[in-house]
Amino acid sequence: MAVYTEISDSQLAEFLQGYNIGTVVSCKGIAEGVENSNFLLFTDKGPFILTLYEKRVEARDLPFFLSLMEHLATEGVPCPTPIHSIDGEVLRSLCDKPAAITSFLSGVSPQTPNLTHCENVGTALANLHLKGHTFKEYRKNSLSKEGWNKLFLQVGNRADEIETGLSKLIQTEISYLKRFWPAELPHGVIHADLFPDNVFFEGNKLTGLIDFYFACNDFLAYDLAICINAWCFEKDFSFNEYKARTMLRAYYRKRKMNQTELNALPILVRGAALRFLATRLYDWLNIVDGALVKPKDPIEYVNKLRFHQSIKSENIYTIQ
Amino acid sequence: MAVYTEISDSQLAEFLQGYNIGTVVSCKGIAEGVENSNFLLFTDKGPFILTLYEKRVEARDLPFFLSLMEHLATEGVPCPTPIHSIDGEVLRSLCDKPAAITSFLSGVSPQTPNLTHCENVGTALANLHLKGHTFKEYRKNSLSKEGWNKLFLQVGNRADEIETGLSKLIQTEISYLKRFWPAELPHGVIHADLFPDNVFFEGNKLTGLIDFYFACNDFLAYDLAICINAWCFEKDFSFNEYKARTMLRAYYRKRKMNQTELNALPILVRGAALRFLATRLYDWLNIVDGALVKPKDPIEYVNKLRFHQSIKSENIYTIQ
Repeated sequence: MAVYTEISDSQLAEFLQGYNIGTVVSCKGIAEGVENSNFLLFTDKGPFILTLYEKRVEARDLPFFLSLMEHLATEGVPCPTPIHSIDGEVLRSLCDKPAAITSFLSGVSPQTPNLTHCENVGTALANLHLKGHTFKEYRKNSLSKEGWNKLFLQVGNRADEIETGLSKLIQTEISYLKRFWPAELPHGVIHADLFPDNVFFEGNKLTGLIDFYFACNDFLAYDLAICINAWCFEKDFSFNEYKARTMLRAYYRKRKMNQTELNALPILVRGAALRFLATRLYDWLNIVDGALVKPKDPIEYVNKLRFHQSIKSENIYTIQ
Repeated sequence: MAVYTEISDSQLAEFLQGYNIGTVVSCKGIAEGVENSNFLLFTDKGPFILTLYEKRVEARDLPFFLSLMEHLATEGVPCPTPIHSIDGEVLRSLCDKPAAITSFLSGVSPQTPNLTHCENVGTALANLHLKGHTFKEYRKNSLSKEGWNKLFLQVGNRADEIETGLSKLIQTEISYLKRFWPAELPHGVIHADLFPDNVFFEGNKLTGLIDFYFACNDFLAYDLAICINAWCFEKDFSFNEYKARTMLRAYYRKRKMNQTELNALPILVRGAALRFLATRLYDWLNIVDGALVKPKDPIEYVNKLRFHQSIKSENIYTIQ
């Protein structure tokens, strides 16, 4: 939960004069989003989301994220679409910070995803990948192979503060992944952070995909691996194969993966586990003063990684 | 800003089955309110506010607050009105905490109140006092005379950690106030915390009074004194007599104060300053681990108190 910047009523009124979306009726800071300050803004024309980008998001990446959201929304993906100002801009400035207004999406995030949620996420992710195919901009995935190394170098042996032996586990895993990581797979723009927090449902109907601030270009199947980790483990860390298979099948029905992609899933889920272990570990060990958000426990992803490592003989991440 | 409790989608859906207000469309924790967790809840019937009462509010006082809001809303005061469950209750339980749903009010709080805001607050406060006249329940003001003493006893000499000599200043002031505090003035139910944060406007039109969780029975003019302190000082701590006179006149037009009340204003504003100095000092010196809210600087109210003390000869808190 986070609202790092307070906006005054007069600053807001002035800011809204730059748009054709009516006058402010209400504006509430919302306790969502770790990286930015988000406000639920009502004008006499309806609800919108106002986002102020705090320093953790690179300002130079914002045009990519906003263009992508606009592209996908235009293509029918249920994601926030940036509202253009009268001058035609989507990225403006408020309280000396980059700011954007996007459309409001209804729905709530599932706390305990069920099978239908997993199925619908699989379908929505495949659709996102297909619709992203015609998006022309490019952003490198800074949290892929080289990124893990960099993050773990910053953490160093301090991983052992969380659990004895964790540094060694990570180093061994990085070596393994570097050796066996696929050289080439079908790639394109991916969400890269499609956790349950970032998906809205009304009942079982998927109504929104949000938070595109990690979106980048990478293997499409890697995005699916991130979702398997995020959606298909139970609260006790046990892997729910049934959920994973349902998600994979739903994805596959919408976008046929080739055999190389299917074969790569066991290593992709390990890479995806390591990526979130890396950032959670870093955040856990580097809590900043005045942080409004409690970092997430890295142990969850240690457990997920260990589970995937334990699967030696057969591919359980399967559509069969 | 604060959301202390996370509500899951299934807990929420189950909770809403107890009401006739439709099904959940969206629910966002909002970064407002120091004492409670507040959520902006949309159902297919519109927006509502869902509040979970955290431990800082006495559970035994909640029926008083909710009855009062219902009474005032029925009488036309623009304040949240509690929504009754199918069973007829306004106070229920969610996530093992007392919880209530109230109506949603539009408007935004003014960051820099202007003269018209002050005028409209004066009118609205008088109206609240008039409409509260027929409210039959009673709650003692625990933050009046005896309450200050108790709070300052808990703080002790630590006030000097904030500013040298502050303990002495406070002790002297308490003695003074005890000696000259009015024995009797027209009394009734008061809001007792009507700061700009708790008043909504659309432009200059007052659209809402919220946060009745300090409401109690006390001198009506004391409520006005709280508002003078909260609304009529500029950011540089200078007192804006023009704003105060405008607020007082607006109040007076709606509810004629008697001469004793008018004469008491100089001491009531000192008492009101001391009351907020007391709680801010206590919060400042007792920051709890895991607090999501930065306490407000007590120095603001030291300055206000000093200003009021400096007015010796004439009553500047006047309708003339």
